[in-house]
Amino acid sequence: MKKNVLIIGAGGVAQVVAHKCAQNNDVLGDIHIASRTKSKCDQIIATVHDKNAMKQPGVLEGHELNALDIQATCDLIRKTDSQIVINVGTAFLNMSVLSACLETGAAYIDTAIHEEPGKICETPPWYGNYEWKRAEECAQKGVTAILGAGFDPGVVNAYARLAKDDYLDKVTDVDIVDINAGSHKQYFATNFDPEINFREFTGTVYSWQGGEWKSNAMFEIGKEYDLPVVGKRMAYLCGHDEVHSLAKNMDGADVRFWMGFGEHYINVFTVLKNIGLLSEQPLQTAEGLEVVPLKVVKACLPDPSSLAPEYEGKTCIGDFVKGIKDGKETEVFIYNVADHAEAYAEVGSQGISYTAGVPPVAAAMLIATGDWDVKKMANVEELPPHPFLGILNRIGLPTRIKDADGDRALTF
Amino acid sequence: MKKNVLIIGAGGVAQVVAHKCAQNNDVLGDIHIASRTKSKCDQIIATVHDKNAMKQPGVLEGHELNALDIQATCDLIRKTDSQIVINVGTAFLNMSVLSACLETGAAYIDTAIHEEPGKICETPPWYGNYEWKRAEECAQKGVTAILGAGFDPGVVNAYARLAKDDYLDKVTDVDIVDINAGSHKQYFATNFDPEINFREFTGTVYSWQGGEWKSNAMFEIGKEYDLPVVGKRMAYLCGHDEVHSLAKNMDGADVRFWMGFGEHYINVFTVLKNIGLLSEQPLQTAEGLEVVPLKVVKACLPDPSSLAPEYEGKTCIGDFVKGIKDGKETEVFIYNVADHAEAYAEVGSQGISYTAGVPPVAAAMLIATGDWDVKKMANVEELPPHPFLGILNRIGLPTRIKDADGDRALTF
Repeated sequence: MKKNVLIIGAGGVAQVVAHKCAQNNDVLGDIHIASRTKSKCDQIIATVHDKNAMKQPGVLEGHELNALDIQATCDLIRKTDSQIVINVGTAFLNMSVLSACLETGAAYIDTAIHEEPGKICETPPWYGNYEWKRAEECAQKGVTAILGAGFDPGVVNAYARLAKDDYLDKVTDVDIVDINAGSHKQYFATNFDPEINFREFTGTVYSWQGGEWKSNAMFEIGKEYDLPVVGKRMAYLCGHDEVHSLAKNMDGADVRFWMGFGEHYINVFTVLKNIGLLSEQPLQTAEGLEVVPLKVVKACLPDPSSLAPEYEGKTCIGDFVKGIKDGKETEVFIYNVADHAEAYAEVGSQGISYTAGVPPVAAAMLIATGDWDVKKMANVEELPPHPFLGILNRIGLPTRIKDADGDRALTF
Repeated sequence: MKKNVLIIGAGGVAQVVAHKCAQNNDVLGDIHIASRTKSKCDQIIATVHDKNAMKQPGVLEGHELNALDIQATCDLIRKTDSQIVINVGTAFLNMSVLSACLETGAAYIDTAIHEEPGKICETPPWYGNYEWKRAEECAQKGVTAILGAGFDPGVVNAYARLAKDDYLDKVTDVDIVDINAGSHKQYFATNFDPEINFREFTGTVYSWQGGEWKSNAMFEIGKEYDLPVVGKRMAYLCGHDEVHSLAKNMDGADVRFWMGFGEHYINVFTVLKNIGLLSEQPLQTAEGLEVVPLKVVKACLPDPSSLAPEYEGKTCIGDFVKGIKDGKETEVFIYNVADHAEAYAEVGSQGISYTAGVPPVAAAMLIATGDWDVKKMANVEELPPHPFLGILNRIGLPTRIKDADGDRALTF
């Protein structure tokens, strides 16, 4: 049954979500986009029409919304008769949007963990601080809520589940590796909201090893990976959402997340952090103005969606999953390669937005078809991976595997 | 005749000025300190008493003052019966404090060029934009106004004049070199107000060469100097106040200013500048707050006066002056070496504040004795250098010379 979708947010990821919903509006029905700034919704809608992205004639409308206002969000869900909400606004909105879904019965999908403005990198598991506290209410009300359904978290969680189900008898290690080998040609820029990007890296780096949470500092532990297409790259142990659910759902296997950084990024990050400019805590200027340094850094940096036209190169994101198969130590690397310029040609966004924005649309399609309409809260690895990865193969993010049998595309 | 002094400002330099005025209150009389924050004046006064710095019993008082308020400044000058105002507040105050001096007849001394908040590195000569426009009024009213009477500008201007008067028949080149070989043991800090420090370096670098203004970018031209005590150091062509008056007063000689920077400073500066965080122009955060990035950087960095207790090492600041003497090409290096830890032991401030704060007190003493009470506006090189350097020899900043005859102390 077709289900109408309300997209919350109007940044680079929302643009991808809008295009992909439009390309699949035979399954998804009406499409609505809501943001504090309605003109940003209208710009996205214009690009959808420019690309003739609507698969069939249908509704595509923009709305002004402060999604921290739960009642206003409920009203818009009801007014637009949306059965699915894809929340790709700032991570500060998650709990208020989820509340609106619980009140209206709409299914909820997000792509990143909830954050509170004044806190970073809270006690692990992160999902336990906000999301999982609402799990029982979701189950009671029969509301489907799929958490972290972007690429990482999201697709990489499905990769881990796939490895566990199909390739290994017992999993011992999940190492998620995210390499962006693209170039945006700016002095410095982040690929998504700088505020959220930096908040990920200024606190404790949590990993799940030996059955407990380990703490490290950012850039403390680096490792060179040699990956398909992008080649040899330095990656660093980072804190990331998916570690916090996979730690619970992979039968006790170690779970680590590694992100690739060049020396220039590390240098800029180190300068800004050491000076205190990445702080999320307000300070006072000599003139008495209260301001959060990180928000000023964000205002100075390029808008991530502005990077798209010049962006070139590829991303490689995947899971090294190690364990035992038929009594032997075995490792598989399940991954995707995306291309910045191809993403821009298709949907007008760069590759990082593309990899984050396509998966929640696949999740929405699976809610519409019923496969993932589980009437409860779930992280992606708790859902069957085959239908999800099958849709992603068709709509732009094909899965490959590299193991003892070679490097090849996977079909589902 | 003893003259009472009003010190405007209560930062690291003001602390040095207060101590040196106290040490010489047999010449200078009552001492008053005024700042927007009276508690900062009181802290300085407490350190003066801690060190028993008052040469003889006398007045030492703090006052709250917004020195942009000309009438309030006039009132305080009259109430305290101050005949000399030493302005070591922010560079944005100069013209309002000078106005108050013109209205009350008090002598005016500052240590840095006037600046307007929204502008950096205006058209050369910088003094022509604000200060020199008031020269005629000073002369008409018989008000002494000594501009740029810190170390650089200030003492280095006197060194240039000394070289011209005593060591050369014709001057062809004045290269002022400022090396701080000290270590403050912080990740990053500036030695005086970060806002003023960075504003010096984000605009065009002006130098006076071949009878005209030349423009370069910061860190475009570097040169290794080998100086007494501090040894080999990289210095870079910078814009600086004294170039803008010496260009007029050195009979057409080339005038350049070189400041020493380590690779770490340059890296931090480059990152902050390229990202836009050193901009003096306001921008809006995503939340709509209007803020000047540079003021946020300032708020993040250590207060320069807080560096003093840990600061170690020496500064070497001087003038390479080249020209013709008895028909032969000749060069002299006239300089001072100061020590951070010794400055702290004596007045509770680091060496950079010390070198900036001692000279205006020498200038005030020369106004009190009449030697420099010229009843008009003057840059330091327009005044006789011997009495100035003579006092500095006695009160903490001795002058040395290095030339073909060796490296030796100078007496006056």
